[in-house]
Order: sequence, then C-alpha cells, then structure tokens
Amino acid sequence: MLKNSLKNIGRSWSNLAGSFRGERFERVGPDLSSGDRELLRRQLKKWLEARGGEVSSRKHAAQIGELYLSLSPVGRKQFLQLLAREFGPDREALREQCKQYLTSSDSACGPIEEELLDLLISPRLKLLRQFNALPQGIKFLVDLRKDLIGFCREEKELQPLDREIQRLLATWFDVGLLEMRQIDWQSPASLLEKLVAYEAVHEIHSWQDLRHRLNMDRRCYAFFHPNMPDEPLIFVEVALTHGIAGSIQILLDDSTPDLAPEAADTAIFYSISNAQQGLMGISFGNFLIKRVVDSLKTELPNIRTFSTLSPVPGFARWLQGLTEEEMDGLIGEEGRADLAEMGNDANSPALLLELLDNAGWHQDEHLCAAVQPLLLRLLYHYFHAKRSDGQPIDPVERFHLGNGARIERVNWLGDVSDKGFAQAYGFMVNYLYPIKEIEKNHELYATKRKIVISSAVRALK
Amino acid sequence: MLKNSLKNIGRSWSNLAGSFRGERFERVGPDLSSGDRELLRRQLKKWLEARGGEVSSRKHAAQIGELYLSLSPVGRKQFLQLLAREFGPDREALREQCKQYLTSSDSACGPIEEELLDLLISPRLKLLRQFNALPQGIKFLVDLRKDLIGFCREEKELQPLDREIQRLLATWFDVGLLEMRQIDWQSPASLLEKLVAYEAVHEIHSWQDLRHRLNMDRRCYAFFHPNMPDEPLIFVEVALTHGIAGSIQILLDDSTPDLAPEAADTAIFYSISNAQQGLMGISFGNFLIKRVVDSLKTELPNIRTFSTLSPVPGFARWLQGLTEEEMDGLIGEEGRADLAEMGNDANSPALLLELLDNAGWHQDEHLCAAVQPLLLRLLYHYFHAKRSDGQPIDPVERFHLGNGARIERVNWLGDVSDKGFAQAYGFMVNYLYPIKEIEKNHELYATKRKIVISSAVRALK
Amino acid sequence: MLKNSLKNIGRSWSNLAGSFRGERFERVGPDLSSGDRELLRRQLKKWLEARGGEVSSRKHAAQIGELYLSLSPVGRKQFLQLLAREFGPDREALREQCKQYLTSSDSACGPIEEELLDLLISPRLKLLRQFNALPQGIKFLVDLRKDLIGFCREEKELQPLDREIQRLLATWFDVGLLEMRQIDWQSPASLLEKLVAYEAVHEIHSWQDLRHRLNMDRRCYAFFHPNMPDEPLIFVEVALTHGIAGSIQILLDDSTPDLAPEAADTAIFYSISNAQQGLMGISFGNFLIKRVVDSLKTELPNIRTFSTLSPVPGFARWLQGLTEEEMDGLIGEEGRADLAEMGNDANSPALLLELLDNAGWHQDEHLCAAVQPLLLRLLYHYFHAKRSDGQPIDPVERFHLGNGARIERVNWLGDVSDKGFAQAYGFMVNYLYPIKEIEKNHELYATKRKIVISSAVRALK
Amino acid sequence: MLKNSLKNIGRSWSNLAGSFRGERFERVGPDLSSGDRELLRRQLKKWLEARGGEVSSRKHAAQIGELYLSLSPVGRKQFLQLLAREFGPDREALREQCKQYLTSSDSACGPIEEELLDLLISPRLKLLRQFNALPQGIKFLVDLRKDLIGFCREEKELQPLDREIQRLLATWFDVGLLEMRQIDWQSPASLLEKLVAYEAVHEIHSWQDLRHRLNMDRRCYAFFHPNMPDEPLIFVEVALTHGIAGSIQILLDDSTPDLAPEAADTAIFYSISNAQQGLMGISFGNFLIKRVVDSLKTELPNIRTFSTLSPVPGFARWLQGLTEEEMDGLIGEEGRADLAEMGNDANSPALLLELLDNAGWHQDEHLCAAVQPLLLRLLYHYFHAKRSDGQPIDPVERFHLGNGARIERVNWLGDVSDKGFAQAYGFMVNYLYPIKEIEKNHELYATKRKIVISSAVRALK
Repeated sequence: MLKNSLKNIGRSWSNLAGSFRGERFERVGPDLSSGDRELLRRQLKKWLEARGGEVSSRKHAAQIGELYLSLSPVGRKQFLQLLAREFGPDREALREQCKQYLTSSDSACGPIEEELLDLLISPRLKLLRQFNALPQGIKFLVDLRKDLIGFCREEKELQPLDREIQRLLATWFDVGLLEMRQIDWQSPASLLEKLVAYEAVHEIHSWQDLRHRLNMDRRCYAFFHPNMPDEPLIFVEVALTHGIAGSIQILLDDSTPDLAPEAADTAIFYSISNAQQGLMGISFGNFLIKRVVDSLKTELPNIRTFSTLSPVPGFARWLQGLTEEEMDGLIGEEGRADLAEMGNDANSPALLLELLDNAGWHQDEHLCAAVQPLLLRLLYHYFHAKRSDGQPIDPVERFHLGNGARIERVNWLGDVSDKGFAQAYGFMVNYLYPIKEIEKNHELYATKRKIVISSAVRALK
Repeated sequence: MLKNSLKNIGRSWSNLAGSFRGERFERVGPDLSSGDRELLRRQLKKWLEARGGEVSSRKHAAQIGELYLSLSPVGRKQFLQLLAREFGPDREALREQCKQYLTSSDSACGPIEEELLDLLISPRLKLLRQFNALPQGIKFLVDLRKDLIGFCREEKELQPLDREIQRLLATWFDVGLLEMRQIDWQSPASLLEKLVAYEAVHEIHSWQDLRHRLNMDRRCYAFFHPNMPDEPLIFVEVALTHGIAGSIQILLDDSTPDLAPEAADTAIFYSISNAQQGLMGISFGNFLIKRVVDSLKTELPNIRTFSTLSPVPGFARWLQGLTEEEMDGLIGEEGRADLAEMGNDANSPALLLELLDNAGWHQDEHLCAAVQPLLLRLLYHYFHAKRSDGQPIDPVERFHLGNGARIERVNWLGDVSDKGFAQAYGFMVNYLYPIKEIEKNHELYATKRKIVISSAVRALK
Repeated sequence: MLKNSLKNIGRSWSNLAGSFRGERFERVGPDLSSGDRELLRRQLKKWLEARGGEVSSRKHAAQIGELYLSLSPVGRKQFLQLLAREFGPDREALREQCKQYLTSSDSACGPIEEELLDLLISPRLKLLRQFNALPQGIKFLVDLRKDLIGFCREEKELQPLDREIQRLLATWFDVGLLEMRQIDWQSPASLLEKLVAYEAVHEIHSWQDLRHRLNMDRRCYAFFHPNMPDEPLIFVEVALTHGIAGSIQILLDDSTPDLAPEAADTAIFYSISNAQQGLMGISFGNFLIKRVVDSLKTELPNIRTFSTLSPVPGFARWLQGLTEEEMDGLIGEEGRADLAEMGNDANSPALLLELLDNAGWHQDEHLCAAVQPLLLRLLYHYFHAKRSDGQPIDPVERFHLGNGARIERVNWLGDVSDKGFAQAYGFMVNYLYPIKEIEKNHELYATKRKIVISSAVRALK
Repeated sequence: MLKNSLKNIGRSWSNLAGSFRGERFERVGPDLSSGDRELLRRQLKKWLEARGGEVSSRKHAAQIGELYLSLSPVGRKQFLQLLAREFGPDREALREQCKQYLTSSDSACGPIEEELLDLLISPRLKLLRQFNALPQGIKFLVDLRKDLIGFCREEKELQPLDREIQRLLATWFDVGLLEMRQIDWQSPASLLEKLVAYEAVHEIHSWQDLRHRLNMDRRCYAFFHPNMPDEPLIFVEVALTHGIAGSIQILLDDSTPDLAPEAADTAIFYSISNAQQGLMGISFGNFLIKRVVDSLKTELPNIRTFSTLSPVPGFARWLQGLTEEEMDGLIGEEGRADLAEMGNDANSPALLLELLDNAGWHQDEHLCAAVQPLLLRLLYHYFHAKRSDGQPIDPVERFHLGNGARIERVNWLGDVSDKGFAQAYGFMVNYLYPIKEIEKNHELYATKRKIVISSAVRALK
C-alpha cells in the first residue's frame, strides 16, 4: 500500500483536497510495517536533500501528506515516531558549536549563535513546514498536531516534536496576523455548523437555538487565520443586556423577546470556545475579548459594562475533596453559628452537602435557605485556593484574572442544568472587565497573584 | 519630542494608520539625543517585561512603532543600533546551557535544546514581532528591514539583527502561505501604479504602456501575502505568442495587434521583478514561475512552450574586463580566422569591440557582419564563466538554471535600447522551461553545476 | 394614528427598513376610518402633484409605504380600494383621444398613440412605482401585490389594479435581468431557511434534510433579482443520478451514500418552487430549467439525460370525479377483461378504487396486482384529459409540455407519502427534456396541443 | 452575409460577448440590400410568433443582435427603419377598440383599457426587449438607442420608436433601482478610464490629473445599474473645501496641498457628467446630488455647505446676440454712467465687449476695471433671460434651479481656460443647495418659475 502511495506521483490531488474539506472522512487505513518504515525513512531523507529543487520538494510534501492521512491511528503514531527519533537536531554538530561557543570572545559569538539556531531548527520541522504547500496545508498541520497531542500522553518521546510544532504554529498564528470577523445568521451554514460542533461551554441543541444566539441582541465573534478562512480558531458569544445577567437559562431561552441593541447597556460574554485542538497552548482568548470590547464600544456607545457569565468548573470537585476539618476551618465559627441557628437536621456541613446529591434539591426552600450562606462562604474560599504555582485552581478564574478582570458577582442558581449542579451546585460567576483598570489588575495579578474582587464578593467571607 | 511620543498614549492611531497608507509620507524627523536614547532604552525594557499583560504590550508596540516612523534616518539607525547592541541574546545564560549540554547524556539533551532555542530567539526579535499588531504591521516590519539593509552596509554590527529579522520574515512569508493573483486592467489603479513603480527590468513608460502589458495576449501574476493584500511581493509579466519571441522591442510595441489567446502556443516570461526590498534573500521567483506555468496550462491548453526573454546584464562588463590574451584565447584559432577573412580594418578583436562604443553601430551592416560571430562565440564563453563558488557570474543565468531551465537561444539585437547595448551589445537570451526536464536539470545544476544548453547554443562555441 | 403617520416626517426610517428585513413582523395595525381615508386621499393627491420635486416625492413614498405597512388587513384593503377607485386613468381624456384617433390619418396617429399610452399608465401606478425608493422597495411592491391578490378574490374592482402592477413587475422582473445563482451549504443560513419556508413540492423537514439536498450529488439553483439579492424568486432542486430516478423516497433518504458527480449521467429535477406569491403570473420556470441544463452540461459533460421526477397533482381528484360509465369507457373491453381475469372480489373498477381509500393498501400484493394495470391505463387517459382551452388539466403536465419536454415514464409507488397517495395513488412521472427536440416539441404543443409521449407510456393505453 | 448571420445558429456567442466588452470594436460592416431586408423581415416575423417557445425566442434575439452589430451605420439605420415602419402598433385593432371605448359604460371601460395598452406596446418594442437576454444586453439596448438618437435627427419617422425605447429604459433605469457607488483610486483602472472618456465639463488631461480628482479631499460618486455593473450612468466630482470655492483652476491644480477631510466645511460639486448618451432624456442628476449630500452629511458631519462651481455655458453667445439697443436697455442709466466715468476709449458697451475677443485681455487691469461692472450687470440679466416656455435659457441654471438650488455667487475669472472665456468671459457661478429650503425653492420654481437668488447676486442688478 505504502509503495503505491509513495510512488503514485501522478495521482490527482483533488481527492485529497476534497477529503480535507470532506465531512465524513473516516477511512480506516493501514499501520506501517517495518518494510514500510524503511521505505518512508528513505523517502524522507530524499525529500530532505531536495535535490530536485525547492519546487519539487514541495510537491513531494503533498505525497507524504497524503500518505499520512491514509494511515490508521497506529500508523500515524509510527510515522510521527520515526520523525521524532531519526530526524531530530544533529547533536554531534550541536556539541561542536557549544564547545566553540564556550571558548569564543563576545565578538565571535554572533556567528556561532546563528549556527546553533540553524542546527536547533530540526530536519523534521523543516519537513513539516513544507506541508503548507498542500491545499489547506495549514489546517493539515494543525490537525496533525491534534493527533500528536493525543499520542504524547503515552509516548513521552514525542513531546519535543510537539513543542517544535507548537513553536512554529505560534509564529504562524501570531495574533497580529489574525482577522476578527463577526458571525451572524448571514454566515454560511457550513461555518455555523462548526459553531455547533465546537461550542464547549453551553451546548447548542438545534438550529433554532443557534439562531437565537445570533439574534439582534446577540453577537458572535471569531478569530480566523487568512490561510484557513473557513475555520474559526476561537469564538465568543455575547449577549447585549440591560444590567449584568446572572442566569444562563434566561439568556439561552429563545422565547424571551429580543432587546433592541441600542437599549442595551451591558455586554455579557457567556461562552468562549477554542475550536482547534491542534492549537493548544497558543492563547487567543485575551486578545479576542479585547478586540470585541473595542468593536462593541464603537458600534454601540451605550454599552459601558463588559462582563462575563462564567461557570465555576472545579468548585464541586474541590469541595468534595475537603476533609471535614478543612471545611470546618473554612466556614469558621460564624458559619457554624449560622448553620446551628437554622436548626437543620444535618448536623455537620459535610452531611448537609450530602443532601445536595439529590436532584431537585434546589426546589426545597428550607434546604436552600440553610445551604446558601454555607456555599457562598465556601465559594469565596474556593476562589482563593491555589495550585502549587501560586495561581488559583479554577481555570476560568485564572484566565479572566490573568486578563485583568475582577470577580464581580456570584449567582445562586445561575445554571440549573445537570452540568451546572454537577460542577458548582448551580453557581455562576460574573467576571467584570473594567476598561480603565484592566492593565493595573493584570499587573497586580501577574506580579503578586492578587485576586481582585468586588466588595460584594469580599463580603461573602 | 521623544518624551511626547512615548507618553502620548491616548493619541489617535488613525494618524499612523494613515501614514502607512499615505503616498507622500516624508516627514523629516529628529535624530535621537543621548537623553532620548536612555528614555527609549527604559521604555523597551518595560515593554519587554510586559507587566501590564500581553494585550497592553501590543498596544505599546504601536507607540514605539510610531516613534520609529517619526525619526530621521540617523535617528532610525540609532534606534536599531540600540536594539542590536543591548537587546541581543543573553550570552551568560547561553554559555551556561552550552556547558550543560556538553556534559549531558542524549536523553537529557532535549530540554537543553529547547532552552537554547528560547535563549537564541533574542529579546529584540520578540519586540519586533509585536509590531505586527500595528495596522499594516507586517508591511511595517518589511519596510523596517529595508532601512536596516541600507544601514548594514556601513554598520556591520547590525547584520545579526538583519539575519534574525530575515529568518522571521522567511517564516511569515513562506511560499505556502502566499496567494497568487492575476493582475489585469480590472485591478485597482492603486495596485497598478505599484507595478509601474516596482518594474525593474523594462521600465513602464505610461498608462498606455501598462495597458498594453495587460492586454488580452498578455498576463501578469503576482504573489501576495494575506496580511499585505494591497502589496505585490513579486510579479511576472508574460506575453502569449506564436513561437518563441526574440525581440523585446516588438513585445513592448503597443501598436502591434493583439493575438487571440487561443491562438498562442508559447508563453514568454519577459519581466520578473521583486517588489519589496525588505524581503531580500527570501526567494519567490521559482515558485511564481511554477505556479504561472500550472495556471496557464489549465487555462490555455494550447500553450506548450514556456520560455523567458531575458537580459544578459553582465556580458559587456565581463568582456570589457578581459585582457587581450584572454580574449584571444577564448575566440581561438577559428575565431581569428573568421575575423581575418572579413578583412576588417580593426586588426584585433579588442579594437573591433571598441567600435561598438559608438551609438548606432548596429546600423552598419558591414560592422555587424564582422562582429556578430565574434560576439556569439564570446557570449558562449560568458555563459560558462564562473564565480568563486562555481556558479555562473550572470545573475539571470544563475536564477533560471537554478530553477531547472536551460539556455535555449540567443537573440542578436534583441534589445536595442541604450540599456540593452550597454549591458550586452543588444543580446537577449531565451531560457526554456521544459516541463518534463525541469527536475532533472535542477538536479544536474544543483549537484554538478552543469550548464544545460540547447544544441543550437552549443554550436556557437 | 394616521395623522401621526403622515406627518411624522422626521421619523427614522431605519425602523421600517428593519421591519422589511425582520422575521417576525406581525404588527396588528388599525383599519382606516372615513376621516383617515379623506386625509390619505389628500396626501396621495399632493404626492401626485410632486410640487416639491421628484426627489421629495420619493421621500413621501416612504412615508406612505410605512403607513401601508402599519395598517390591519382591512385597512390595507381600504387603502388599495382608494387607489383603485379614485386614481385610475382619466377616462374623460381617454375618450377625447379615442375620438381624435378615429378621425386621424395614419401620419397623425403616432402622437395620439403616445398620448393614449400616457393616459393609460394610471396615476395609481405612478404612485406605486415610487415605492421602489424604499429600502428593499421592490420587495415591498411584490409583497403588496401578494396582499392584493388575496383581496382580489372577493373584490373584483381591485383586479385592474392587480393587472397594472403585474405588468410593471413583469417589466422589472424580465428574465433577462435576473441572475441565476447556485445555492449550497456555503450559502448564508438566512437564505437557506427561505428554501425551507418556500419549498412547495416536497417539504424540507430539518436542517439535516436540507443539508442532504445540498450534498455533492445534489444541486440547487435559483433566480435572483439584483434589487432583491437575498430573496430567491424561484428555485429548483436537482439530483445527480445514474439512470433516471423513479422514487422520491429514495432521493430524499439522507442515509443513501452520495454519488461522485463525475459518475452521474442523469440530472433529475425533483422539485421546483416559486418563492414569491406576489409574482404570480410571471413565469420563470422554463428559463430556469434551460439555464440549469446549460450550466450542468458545461460543469459535468458526462450528464446527458435531463429529466424531472414530478407529482401528478390532479390524478386522484379527476378519477374520483368520473362516473362509472366514463370510467368503463376509458378502460375499455380489454381493461375489463384484465380485471375479470384477476377474479377480484370488487366487481367493478369503481368498487376496486374504493379499496384504495384504506391506508397501507399498497402493501397488499394481491390488490396491487389487480389495480396496477387499471390505474396505468387510467393515468394514460388522465394525461389526455383537457380543459376548456384545450390544454391538459394537470398543471405540472401543462408546464413541462409547454417547455418542450415529453412524458417519458410513469413510476408505480414513486411517492408513498400520504400526499403522494392522496394526489395520485403514489404515482410519479418523469418528464424528459431531450436537448435536441425541445424546440420542436414546444412548437407541436403550442400550435397543435400535441401531447408528446414516449413509446413506453403510449403502450399503457 | 446576412444569410450566414441569420442561419449561423450554432455559432458561439462568446464572440459577441467579447465584442461588447471589447475596446476596439470597429468592424465596418455591410449595408442591408433589399434581399437582406426581405430576409430580415421574415426573420423578425418568425421571431415575433415565438413558435419554438419563449426560451428559443430569446436565443434568436442574440442572433439578431449580432446581425445588428455587424452592420454598417447605414445598415443599422435601415434595420431600425424596418422596425419603425413595419412593426408598429396595429392601428386597425386600435381603432376598433377606440370605437368600443366611446360607446362603453364606465364599468366596461377597464377591459378595453387593458386591450388598448396591449395594442400600444408595439411588436417592435417586444422584440427589442428581448435583447436583454444578450450578454450585457441592457448595455446593448442603451447603445442601440444612442445610434437611434443620431438617426432621428434626419429621419423623423424614427422618433416614435425612440420614444418607445426611452419609455422602456425609463422603467428599467428607474432611480429606485440604481446603486450609488463611490469611485476612488482603489477602483478598477477599466472603470477609471471611463471617467476620463465621459467627463464632459472639465476634461481630465492625464492619470495624474485623475488621481488628483480622487485624492483624500475629493470625492467622486456615480450611479450604476445592477445589470450594467461596469458602466457608470452619471457621475459627479466633489471637492471638500474650506469655504465656497470660486476658481476652477485652483481646484484642478494638482500641486495644491490636500485638505484633511475633517477640516472641510464645504462640499463643492464642480463637475457632473452623463455617461450614457443612450439614456438621454432620463434624468438622474437631481437624485445623485441628493444622495451625495446625504452620504457626505453622514460621513463628514462638519460639512454644512453644499454648493456647485458651475460654468455659464450660454452667457457669451447670448451677449453676442443682443442688439446695441437691447444691451443699452439692460445696463441702464447707471451702467452707462459707470462706463463714462471710467473714461474708457471704447465709447459703447458693444465696442467695449469687442475688446474681449483678444486673448489675454484679463491681464489688462484697466480694461478689467471697466468691463467687470458691466459684465456683472449683464450676467444678472442673463440669469433672468427666458425661453419660450418661461424657463431660463441657461441649461445649467435650469438644472440647478429645478433641483431647488439658488444662485449664490458669481466668480470673476473663475475659469480662465479658453473654453471659460469663450463661454462666459471667464465667469463661473456657485449654485447653493440649502438643505432646509430645497423643497420650497423647487416649488417656487416649478409653479412660478421664480429665480431664487442670493442678496449678493441681487445687488448686481
């Protein structure tokens, strides 16, 4: 099979181009036998020499790309392992340059630095770069890295290759090269169905649901790369509201009447999703939020408040991991007093929380009254719980604080979906982006890990 | 002045954006005083720390970019020197890693290689990369490198910075990321006037001349970068002809009737110009020719011959540099016999050539008859004259042979303009691109420096 | 209310523009009181005089258009009645010109003809024409005529106005001015949802269903008017198949695998829908089919057969309207013999047909065997049943024969939906468009009402 | 030849499409012999019957269109005469309907009116309408009318046909169907060269001149028809200035520095040209000015004054046509006194004016001082000189007053070109469009022929 692939030079590439675009591309291809690997190794070496010139070298890239696509998952892993093991930087030569560098005067360092740089850009990366000659070649490489990220979990030897590709993609996907576009109901259906597929925060259930999210009091923006014009990289969904929204179910209810955009004073960022797994580790979110804020300020000057309505993905898990002592310590004297006063049947916070395992607990008013102050106090402490690197354990909190936002408000029963209860007992959080303080907030967070918080939330302690 | 620039944060950027687009941007700005330099140094360091976050860091890039644009040439050089001297790679840290590398086992090498790579991507380059956040920021960097190339001639210390930027631009302007577009009389006037400005081979004298070059039997193609959509990077002008054209004056004569494209069997590439000096050293020409050939084959299947009509820029200079002995050696017995037979007044080749200093010599039939075989023989030898690196001294020859073309035909009085006589006594050359042999030719040239030549030209020897 | 409307000159038109585009425009407005009518009458007269000039006259059109949109259905009818009754042609003046015409020599006729023409283009039409100054004004007029067509059924006095508007729209929507565009999955969602709304033949049940109809072995084309770029006028759905398809349920089954377009030899037009009720009486279908055939022939030269898969909307109704004698006459001796031979329980054709009222009858093999030859014979006669004007009673047959197609094949159980049984006992028909015979067929039909029919269908008699 | 044309049905139409677009279409074709005319007559009749159906009828239109284009000017006139003479309305039938109309009651009039209308839309017009099926068919008809207008001058019999076509074009080119687009230096060169060709007021001398007229302090707008997207119908050139400009030579001087558009408070309409002779009699100018004013008010709110800088095309001719007595009467006692006081050599106004025949007279200060008050007074009277229909004799004045503008200012030596002196002794006029008074002005002019004039100009009397 491989032989055919590698030799089948005249074969029309329209097929491949088709399959990139194709919706149902699920060929289950072969693995690589040891003979195939040997053949591939020779092919890659020949390619690397580029003896027929740069132009034909690019043409060969297409053939090797087609081969890659035709392989089974195992075969693809073998392909990448071959690259990782045998086409890395030339260590002999690197050692030689390192030696020279150590004995060189400053004035002689420059040329050696360039030599080092040349040697560190490995042969395998030079090969992979050429895949951009494929139709939709940038997308090809992004998807190849998606495969690679999967393989890396079990095969640590692949990690250096992954980091090399990430470095290359970070240069190509530099935020300065991206284009922000608004997505609305005029957008192509083929693009809209990608929103449905990629939406990672609040699932889109139907075209009706999607249409509601693109209504006149909604906005959706995405970053695109000029060489991947049909593929959003990241997108954010925004609701234009009057006042800060606290309930996701109200936002997503398509029977609520639309607000005239001119009447809105607030923009709520209620969902932000990365669309390309192959770009993991390359961050666009902060820039996208900044660009959307700028765009909305120009389009709708009445909008003065920019806030999120965000999930608290790790709260329940964190809470369930606390020992009874830890929890006791966190709620403190005052918290215990509150609970006692309620005269609740459950005679400890932990027992109380157990009651929340029952679906529908939030319709029990008595239970709610008992548990709400307890949860609010614990949520306050959750915001301040830290990882070993000193950053908050909640990923959403890390992202927004890192962007210069502050924790503005917590919303009891803000998300009453199963997922909302499972993650955070129904809580949602508003992170506020106060235009004039973003830089200062960022600096406080970046240098001192300060959790910037509104006085209302501080009062929950 | 500088203080104002650096602090003038609120100033509208639309001005700057305007000036990038502007046609007549020729502010003569100030140099950098030593106080200014100190201020700039501190600003750059602060920028590098990015304490307000990546987003505001990009915003500062714009201010520093504006500062750069506002400077005099001397000021710009000082700006770049500051970057080159003080923001290079951290040599202390590099030496440390080199030391470790030399003592590490293979399995420990990977992480050190990444460290080295991080250290080798210098702070100054990280700063410069952020300029792409400017409106038309990629173009900004290309133009900055154009300045830099100029300064490098006298200030060698700037060369490493230049090579770093070239490396970055080579990644961004990878040929796989470029778009080929056809340019015709439907194209925007603002684009067409750039052709007039950038045409480097046969000057465009008027809009009438330009229109002729975009007629139905002409084609013009250019590469564009998606982030610089209004700026051609390189463009090629093609004439569709019947048979291989040998005379540039006929091609450029706008009174000749147009050929119906379907009636043409040959495409003549008669001019290829790089449009961006700031991209020097990054080659697109071979890919552009390849893409144009592919495009024409699809559009006009009758076209089977692809050839250039090219100047011979170094012939006259080379000839004038030969000693009498060298020349004698080159023309050989046979050549001398030919000359003797003509019974010419000038009793040596050198004396004969002197006659060619007189304008209008080509209208003297007798002289032409004497000098033509002599020049043809010498031209043959010129094609084989080599530089120290073993490549031909003629740059046009190097380019086309390197692409896999062959020397097909020489054209006596192919260019009777002053420039044509001054460069090559009126000679022009056709380099042929024989579709099926290009790869083989390239390999012969790349590995053995073989000058591939048609039998007709070989007969000139 | 009216007073406000008419005077509210400064009011922003963006509202109205919005409402034209709006999806859920269903304001229930007021009727016109007699005072309002008087006010409107005066306003219309003032408008007609255009004393402030043509430019402001157009501006007033917008206000009157807004008034119209704000009215209840009764109010709109009153509005149109006012126009119809009081703003028709000037009959006094017309009679005067008629008198002169009758006494004029041929050479004096020309000017009178022009006078007549001027008088016959009524004031009300001049007013209505100006509505095209509205945002989306052409669409406004198309929708106004849709209202009008509804009112005409009960108010005959409105018919002349309707015919005047139809005449105007026929000029504006001349087929030479329309643009054919392909619609596919790249098209805007807002356009695709109109297909769902307007599809008149085989309902589109979901986005999944729609996507299937736009797959790679499907095509959809529509005519658009340049002043209504977001509104299809008519669209046709085509399946690319191998051989002529006979079953709509197979075509619409989205689980069948796609055919590579290059492998198809037949194009099946399986649905054609007019999208604008306001354009009733202005025909585009024949031109659309012609353009699609041309386009497919160019794109996919392998496709040589162009056929429809069409319903037989009037068959069941016609059959149920026959008396027993008529039916007996139609099936003839031979038919009755066939039936007798089957030994069926139902001892007359009419009784037999009654059995077909039971849902699921087609799963009874015995019944099918009995009834199939009977129905085929009757279907043959149905094709030849004529209206008083000599044309076939089946509207689909009239349309395709009028276009030059022929009746090629009938398909037993071609449509097993409820609608399919109700209309035609499950029959569908293929009308074939034989490229070379279309003109001849058309002429035979147009001049002699000849029903062109394949030999296979003729054999059913 | 004709036979071939008419029969050559299979011939590719791409040729014709090409020739429409072609720049140098100047085939000199044949006239129509009497045999040809007979053949054409039969062809037209067959076409009219449309026996092969509407679709093929349109196809025949293309062939007849090609025939028309292939004819000599004489042949084209013969073609149109054939149409005019033999394919006019059916007078027999018209008379019949007229008779019936005169004896019908009101309720029976409606149907007869429709009959009349059908009969009055002549067969020749039905044929011509079908030409819009040609590639660029609308443009074809516009150009055919251009021919026709030329022929009409000598052949009065063609006038009714001309008016029929004008009526049709007036419907198709209704201003509500047109699109206004801005033209700038980004526009296609092929469009810009049309500006050069069509500019009728102040000739464009070079691309440099054109570029100046599209600079940042200039604007150019045109109306386009959606079916003729590459052809401007009418365009206007605007200068953004500080204060009302009085000198065309300053406006057109490309060495004057550009004004930042934000700094401008005035928009000067200094040239307005109809681009399509075939649309003569269909007016767009008033609408275009209105749309440009609206567009500029939105884009540049600082602009509050909208004025023209216009020629006075008939002033010199009118003056030279006055008798000595008339002139004497116009300047009056006071004028004569002024002149006497100057002590000029020329002892009568007429003699004085004779001095203005000498080129360069405006550089003679003494002469200028004498002649200026005289000319100003006469110019005042020229504005009030009327045609038999009561409208001003100056066409530019008629146009702007008819649009609701007023005569604001006259500019001595506003146009010192040869043309400027020849038309109006160097005078130019500013017509002001005072937003709030336009409607009132229009009404005063339309109903009472009032010449609205500023107090400054009134003082010239």
